[in-house]
Amino acid sequence: MPKINRYVDIDTVERETRKDYIDRHSPFIHCEANAKAGEKFAVTVMVGNEYAHPDDFDHFISNVALYNGEILLARADFVPGTLANTKTKVEVTFNIVPTKKMKLVAQSYCTKHGVWESDPVKVEVN
Amino acid sequence: MPKINRYVDIDTVERETRKDYIDRHSPFIHCEANAKAGEKFAVTVMVGNEYAHPDDFDHFISNVALYNGEILLARADFVPGTLANTKTKVEVTFNIVPTKKMKLVAQSYCTKHGVWESDPVKVEVN
Amino acid sequence: MPKINRYVDIDTVERETRKDYIDRHSPFIHCEANAKAGEKFAVTVMVGNEYAHPDDFDHFISNVALYNGEILLARADFVPGTLANTKTKVEVTFNIVPTKKMKLVAQSYCTKHGVWESDPVKVEVN
Amino acid sequence: MPKINRYVDIDTVERETRKDYIDRHSPFIHCEANAKAGEKFAVTVMVGNEYAHPDDFDHFISNVALYNGEILLARADFVPGTLANTKTKVEVTFNIVPTKKMKLVAQSYCTKHGVWESDPVKVEVN
Repeated sequence: MPKINRYVDIDTVERETRKDYIDRHSPFIHCEANAKAGEKFAVTVMVGNEYAHPDDFDHFISNVALYNGEILLARADFVPGTLANTKTKVEVTFNIVPTKKMKLVAQSYCTKHGVWESDPVKVEVN
Repeated sequence: MPKINRYVDIDTVERETRKDYIDRHSPFIHCEANAKAGEKFAVTVMVGNEYAHPDDFDHFISNVALYNGEILLARADFVPGTLANTKTKVEVTFNIVPTKKMKLVAQSYCTKHGVWESDPVKVEVN
Repeated sequence: MPKINRYVDIDTVERETRKDYIDRHSPFIHCEANAKAGEKFAVTVMVGNEYAHPDDFDHFISNVALYNGEILLARADFVPGTLANTKTKVEVTFNIVPTKKMKLVAQSYCTKHGVWESDPVKVEVN
Repeated sequence: MPKINRYVDIDTVERETRKDYIDRHSPFIHCEANAKAGEKFAVTVMVGNEYAHPDDFDHFISNVALYNGEILLARADFVPGTLANTKTKVEVTFNIVPTKKMKLVAQSYCTKHGVWESDPVKVEVN
């Protein structure tokens, strides 16, 4: 509390009926499964997989945060209207330099529906 | 995951032995129990009750966020060194205007030990 | 560019005719003129002196930043609606620990009218 | 004040002698010169052109902000150490949806040397 909403915690039935709601709030991490230690590694966070969230002034995704385990790596803040309320998903690409294996997790924040968390993504670092 | 650490979730034994660790990371909300609808209402968040967190460059409280239920009201970001690494607690006072009863929760973020959450504080609004 | 708007840069005539516009966007620093080295020092930033800025979803003050000379001390981010669109001014109190004399400057950001900067405030530290 | 440092304001002589200092603090915008109205448009901000800024705990780039004229589009905050203090430049890619021509400007913030601003970049939107 504030509740952390997770796509995976939602039961199958509910997931079907509320699929668009859940999908468009959930952040998804897109990155390679392997990284080279000490080299730049791009991590894209996109909010929504099949559906895009509204970008209304009173209802928008105001930030996206990227964690490695418990540790915050970076966070992006958005102002309403920058996606012109089109069907475009919130998307930001952070660049980090890993030194050992990571367990990435993203959180997105909707001004009406709170905090949503991605599945964790493991990255091997060699 | 990222784990939300809570003072209340820590068992009594552990709480005794690691009291300073837990105390200095936990945010505490200080505000009146009652507010007037439509009027300015001050909410102070202080990190630590008996103990102050370090303000080292590699170990500091980098932000404090205030929620009403699921909804973010405000967030403050800090740069290391602004407390001169003294025994001063991180403290910020947000001013909000409530319109109905609130359930306030604060989160603080330590650059080494992750997210910590306060007990919820109910505020009646008349 | 982005232009930094300053109350003091606006000529007298314009200041009269557009007084409410200028006033309600300008951040004002409220603090003591003297601080004790190594001790907690409260700095309140209020946006607007005689007038309050709207808190509409499409037109609000989304952040306030506090600098000492070139150095950022803290920044607060706000979500629209937390002032319930009343005549309440945006206000946040940061607590810092000075070690030597400071030249504080605040900036506020309006989602329609950009960055506004306060007069600098000198604080002696003994 | 806080001074906005600009690569272009620095005279030729100083620019030669302090080239690495100036270069590694300056944000550079990388994007297409033309965008389609209503479609996703990627804008990458990289801090430093030939030189990378340190990522020390007491000296790092803590945020990058992207403006269109006076209007903030997005801002990314970083925690020290996420670039492992390698020779990797701070880099973030924001995705926005333009509706008419833009004049993009980026600002980066160094915890020791303050605010730095890019040259403006004009983007035609058809």
